[in-house]
Amino acid sequence: MSCGEFDIIARYFNRQGNSRKDVRLGIGDDCALLIPAEKQYLAISTDTLVSGIHFLPDINPADLGYKSLAVNLSDLAAMGADPAWVSLALTLPSIDETWLKSFSDSFFSVLDYYGMQLIGGDTTKGPLSLTLTINGWIPVGKELTRSGARIGNWIYVTGWLGDSAAGLAILQNRLSVEDDEVRDYLVKRHLRPQPRILMGLGIRQLATSAIDLSDGLISDLKHILKASKCGAKIHLDRLVLSDALKSSCSREQALTWALSGGEDYELCFTVAEENRGMIDTALTDLGIPFTCIGQIMPEHTGFQLCDNNQPVSLDLSGYDHFASGSQENHAC
Amino acid sequence: MSCGEFDIIARYFNRQGNSRKDVRLGIGDDCALLIPAEKQYLAISTDTLVSGIHFLPDINPADLGYKSLAVNLSDLAAMGADPAWVSLALTLPSIDETWLKSFSDSFFSVLDYYGMQLIGGDTTKGPLSLTLTINGWIPVGKELTRSGARIGNWIYVTGWLGDSAAGLAILQNRLSVEDDEVRDYLVKRHLRPQPRILMGLGIRQLATSAIDLSDGLISDLKHILKASKCGAKIHLDRLVLSDALKSSCSREQALTWALSGGEDYELCFTVAEENRGMIDTALTDLGIPFTCIGQIMPEHTGFQLCDNNQPVSLDLSGYDHFASGSQENHAC
Repeated sequence: MSCGEFDIIARYFNRQGNSRKDVRLGIGDDCALLIPAEKQYLAISTDTLVSGIHFLPDINPADLGYKSLAVNLSDLAAMGADPAWVSLALTLPSIDETWLKSFSDSFFSVLDYYGMQLIGGDTTKGPLSLTLTINGWIPVGKELTRSGARIGNWIYVTGWLGDSAAGLAILQNRLSVEDDEVRDYLVKRHLRPQPRILMGLGIRQLATSAIDLSDGLISDLKHILKASKCGAKIHLDRLVLSDALKSSCSREQALTWALSGGEDYELCFTVAEENRGMIDTALTDLGIPFTCIGQIMPEHTGFQLCDNNQPVSLDLSGYDHFASGSQENHAC
Repeated sequence: MSCGEFDIIARYFNRQGNSRKDVRLGIGDDCALLIPAEKQYLAISTDTLVSGIHFLPDINPADLGYKSLAVNLSDLAAMGADPAWVSLALTLPSIDETWLKSFSDSFFSVLDYYGMQLIGGDTTKGPLSLTLTINGWIPVGKELTRSGARIGNWIYVTGWLGDSAAGLAILQNRLSVEDDEVRDYLVKRHLRPQPRILMGLGIRQLATSAIDLSDGLISDLKHILKASKCGAKIHLDRLVLSDALKSSCSREQALTWALSGGEDYELCFTVAEENRGMIDTALTDLGIPFTCIGQIMPEHTGFQLCDNNQPVSLDLSGYDHFASGSQENHAC
């Protein structure tokens, strides 16, 4: 079936009407027109996903529709922001209506779940890639930045680290897992990461800094340390590894993935001693673990890793797809 | 020279500091944090440019830096919005520092000219493409939409149509122009279109509808007609063609390019009879022609083209890169 750009937009992407009261004009004009919230910051983040770099070329379009939004939502979560709108720029090599239906159904399921609206974008021909720009709101003074960590603050992570890297290894036949349930769990953790929006809302005004774990704990925590001019001490034995991960590989491999596998989309945040109790109260009912894995130290002490109180040296860094020798556990 | 993603951002794109008072946090955290204007709509538009589809693969990076912003600014102009911030998602096959310097120098020249700030984006590896999401402000009630045209309104266009398509034809060796000055003018009109921001600001609250001409006059005007549920009558003999265009090809070719060449990035807008005088006052000092080329008609009369008051039939439509048989005068 022949189908032009405007048909694609009308058929697959202009399906919400105006679902939010703060949208004066959505898809279909030169710009979308939005009504700002009072006394709030507008939080904006952009992520590009390129086929063969950020996802496997044969990815199920429903998984891609989900994940493209999830990784963008994760940036809002790390800022403590409430999701509002998103723009989608979709570059496709050709029109495949089955693909488009599956992708857009999944995409809009996530939008609807978070009460968000697609407000515009672009549809172009070219090698498969997506760029999303997401918008959210955060009350002035409650924002979570990377620069607020202070010496003595406790370092927390949400959820379980390393599962996503194991899931990708399974998809790329670098890891073999016999138990179907374990296999499915790890693959799902890679393809369908849960953005920690509720946890981001829960810790705002309580945490001193936050970041989402997209490149790996070590790499991402270092952004906090650099912005906050601090060092850190991390206890490997406190990292929460899922039973699935532990049963699928050696402890060393599991720790490597947990520290530098990337794509966990968990949150890492820092909390002052006096707010630890309130963090417990705020997060306990959300059903996701949150674990204190270390402490912020003076800058001159650098970044220290300990295992059972013994210093360990690991040469691990996060993912950088331009750096030579990118790590094995990212697509391509 | 080896150079990672964070180096690229630091070296070429994180150069403005906080140049705008409404930016609480720019590049370098999970999200940018922006301070909304009061009693204004936030206007957002997204454009993707793919190498070989939207620009020639051998384009000068300075031209690409300029044009990528200009086409996005043109959408703000068509809404009557004041430019504020932009996000840039840049996908590059490899790191070429000469290319990056030239591209970013040009990009920031345009940003500085319009008092805008780059607030974030993404840098990824892959086939060359760019996605920009631009943000601007417009006082509530002054926005220019596509749906406000009414029967009897006069139809205007700014500037000169068709130059850009002729410029592209020159670059693709489909048009030969001997006079260097004429050649350079037409090529520049293709590579360096001037977004009509000031004209957009001038006509807001005076025009009933507006759109920017990216796909071609016929195609773009039809968006206004569809959104406003109207027809239109256009007088070909009233279209303003540049001397350069007229001297370079037949009148028929010039009209074809003016009607459906695309990439003019002029504005097309509609004005009620009683506001024509105020439009003259608002736009006269800007140094760009604005020409009444026809009138809005009842929907059932459709879209009529006249030349010296005689009806003409032209089978021309705007550019759609997914439709079969895309027109010759777009890159690839």
